[in-house]
Amino acid sequence: RKKILVTGGAGFVGSHLVDKLMMEGHEVIVLDNFFTGQRKNVDHWMHHPRFSLVVHDVTEPIMLEVDEIYHLACPASPPHYQYNPVKTIKTSTMGTINMLGLAKRVKAKILLTSTSEIYGDPKVHPQPESYWGNVNTIGPRSCYDEGKRVAETMMYSYKNQNNVDVRVARIFNTFGPRMHPNDGRVVSNFIIQSLQDKPMTIYGDGSQTRSFQYVSDLVDGLHALMNGKYDLPVNLGNPDEYTVKHFAEYIKEITGSKSEISFLKATQDDPTQRKPDISTAKRELNWEPKVTVKEGLHKTIAYFSRVLDETG
Amino acid sequence: RKKILVTGGAGFVGSHLVDKLMMEGHEVIVLDNFFTGQRKNVDHWMHHPRFSLVVHDVTEPIMLEVDEIYHLACPASPPHYQYNPVKTIKTSTMGTINMLGLAKRVKAKILLTSTSEIYGDPKVHPQPESYWGNVNTIGPRSCYDEGKRVAETMMYSYKNQNNVDVRVARIFNTFGPRMHPNDGRVVSNFIIQSLQDKPMTIYGDGSQTRSFQYVSDLVDGLHALMNGKYDLPVNLGNPDEYTVKHFAEYIKEITGSKSEISFLKATQDDPTQRKPDISTAKRELNWEPKVTVKEGLHKTIAYFSRVLDETG
Ligand SMILES: NC(=O)c1ccc[n+]([C@@H]2O[C@H](COP(=O)([O-])OP(=O)(O)OC[C@H]3O[C@@H](n4cnc5c(N)ncnc54)[C@H](O)[C@@H]3O)[C@@H](O)[C@H]2O)c1
Ligand SMILES: NC(=O)c1ccc[n+]([C@@H]2O[C@H](COP(=O)([O-])OP(=O)(O)OC[C@H]3O[C@@H](n4cnc5c(N)ncnc54)[C@H](O)[C@@H]3O)[C@@H](O)[C@H]2O)c1
Ligand SMILES: O=c1ccn([C@@H]2O[C@H](COP(=O)(O)OP(=O)(O)O)[C@@H](O)[C@H]2O)c(=O)[nH]1
Ligand SMILES: O=c1ccn([C@@H]2O[C@H](COP(=O)(O)OP(=O)(O)O)[C@@H](O)[C@H]2O)c(=O)[nH]1
Ligand SMILES: O=c1ccn([C@@H]2O[C@H](COP(=O)(O)OP(=O)(O)O)[C@@H](O)[C@H]2O)c(=O)[nH]1
Ligand SMILES: O=c1ccn([C@@H]2O[C@H](COP(=O)(O)OP(=O)(O)O)[C@@H](O)[C@H]2O)c(=O)[nH]1
Repeated sequence: RKKILVTGGAGFVGSHLVDKLMMEGHEVIVLDNFFTGQRKNVDHWMHHPRFSLVVHDVTEPIMLEVDEIYHLACPASPPHYQYNPVKTIKTSTMGTINMLGLAKRVKAKILLTSTSEIYGDPKVHPQPESYWGNVNTIGPRSCYDEGKRVAETMMYSYKNQNNVDVRVARIFNTFGPRMHPNDGRVVSNFIIQSLQDKPMTIYGDGSQTRSFQYVSDLVDGLHALMNGKYDLPVNLGNPDEYTVKHFAEYIKEITGSKSEISFLKATQDDPTQRKPDISTAKRELNWEPKVTVKEGLHKTIAYFSRVLDETG
Repeated sequence: RKKILVTGGAGFVGSHLVDKLMMEGHEVIVLDNFFTGQRKNVDHWMHHPRFSLVVHDVTEPIMLEVDEIYHLACPASPPHYQYNPVKTIKTSTMGTINMLGLAKRVKAKILLTSTSEIYGDPKVHPQPESYWGNVNTIGPRSCYDEGKRVAETMMYSYKNQNNVDVRVARIFNTFGPRMHPNDGRVVSNFIIQSLQDKPMTIYGDGSQTRSFQYVSDLVDGLHALMNGKYDLPVNLGNPDEYTVKHFAEYIKEITGSKSEISFLKATQDDPTQRKPDISTAKRELNWEPKVTVKEGLHKTIAYFSRVLDETG
């Protein structure tokens, strides 16, 4: 039984991770400022004796005694991380320094949820961990991309200099229940639009690609990474690649929607292709995704149907 | 007459910039923690009524009232910035956030000295400002490279979000008097080695290239950038490109040295080529380097001869 801190634990990915850690019998502390997270994502644990919620901003120092830190705190969807770019950067820089300072002091193992965005608009496809990326330092996405890039740098600097035991996951697009309905990411947008027979909004011509992973696979991967010995960055994603246009049509088909597909202005610096090379995760963690995109979509569509029913 | 803050003003570049600003009649405040800077670089201004020295670390907040900030504080030579990578990152991240917070509060214009290192090991040659770079997030140079990359991101985030008036200079290899003799950079190493007839240490086979700018040109460029209207990143460098091997031979020739040339192990992630495209600086600032590498080397060699004479 370990004491485990999950920063960003009231968010989409964090709350699923918390479920797994609680089910395993650990003591779990969630640290979240509720910027994009919601109390209701962890409400079911609120009175559990092994669970605590600390409403706190990671950009401020905090003293805790823990064995492991899953450091997720950071808005993840483009509209959210671009809402207050200065805050996004402070979260990735000061937030990660604080969590590394904590990990160093209490000798905790720490895992950072980095992102496929550190590869930017990749010139190598699919992306292996050895690829250095193609990122604009001063574009609209850079508050997120460069924040995560330097957070990775911090992880290995504390490892080399202070013997902090680090893990770095580079997460590719992930979807599932508890995504915020106003999150603005493609999966939630397309599902909600199709369920409401509203126009499905494609940014650009829809030829850009993404590869989609169901959240339970990601949570298993994060857990395997934390508990394994491998301490270099590891891609976690499902290599099942779709053009955004095809993905829209697919969701329209599954939901039997009458939505039109409408093409809007492309967003600046939107990566044109993205697909993980997951050979490192297979080799080092014996991990690979188990849930197909189809299965995952069915579960997520069922979830959003319920959410829409409840909110009317 | 303006109040001007120069962080890192006791360092190599900073102290030359201070000389120019003092000669122009401004009030100058130097903020430096003396990590790689030296009091003697600004000693000649110490009792001047328009000059102040604040011994302070930029990673800590500070309250001042100024009109302009030249934000240089950051170790610049690989041995120095790799000596304490965690501190290097804190300097670029927390340091830049603090200076931007200050600039925002007092409505000061702020200039960041970024670097050609944000292009990493470039695949595009020469490097225009539009090139996004090729940087390893987790290598030995990344504490400097990624720190500067995210510092650039911070600059434009504060500009877009808080109307901070920003300038970003991407500086290419610069040399001249007041480089620290133990700095470890190629120009000071080669000159000192050749003056002492000691082996000139080439890392790798010497086929990597750099382009060298004399410090007075850089200072003119920084000044022109700060006082101009153009607020996107600008390369400042001299496109005169040398292989490191040729550069060693050239310095050996000028100094008439008996040094041998010795080839040591290459350092990890050492950029293989580097040369600025300076068309932006020419167009927007009407700036270009005036001092040839040859002239600059003569002045710098004369300087180091004096330093070696003094220290014996
Ligand atoms: N979901 C994906 O597709 C994806 C892909 C790549 C990386 N990631 C990473 O995974 C992590 C979780 O992503 P998510 O999809 O669950 O996003 P999310 O927005 O649902 O969750 C982020 C959580 O962090 C909290 N948070 C944000 N800033 C904070 C701060 N300053 N202090 C404390 N808490 C703060 C939010 O309130 C929220 O609960 C993030 O680090 C994200 O960058 C996610
Ligand atoms: N010289 C070059 O070739 C070159 C090339 C690219 C970029 N730059 C940039 O120009 C700037 C000046 O470089 P330089 O060659 O004069 O280096 P330098 O090492 O001589 O000067 C840096 C100065 O910053 C001070 N400093 C470092 N950390 C600090 C901290 N935390 N708080 C306060 N002061 C601190 C040092 O004491 C020193 O006086 C740096 O930002 C560097 O990254 C220089
Ligand atoms: O239990 C802790 C230990 C450290 N920190 C923060 O982590 C940061 C980085 O820690 P580190 O030890 O590297 O910094 P230092 O204290 O040496 O500046 C510091 O700003 C601390 O405020 C924290 O929040 N909790
Ligand atoms: O309503 C939407 C939301 C997103 N996208 C596109 O879908 C892809 C994935 O976007 P998302 O925001 O989900 O994640 P990203 O991978 O860009 O961070 C990108 O190319 C977006 O431009 C879209 O076409 N319509
Ligand atoms: O005169 C000032 C104003 C701000 N700051 C620092 O700059 C940082 C960023 O300022 P900002 O206004 O963005 O931050 P906030 O105060 O909103 O957290 C803060 O941590 C302040 O400590 C400073 O050192 N001097
Ligand atoms: O004694 C030295 C110092 C540097 N270099 C090489 O010279 C180039 C410039 O190195 P420096 O440290 O001056 O600057 P930077 O690598 O940051 O451009 C690099 O390829 C170094 O490997 C070298 O061969 N011998």
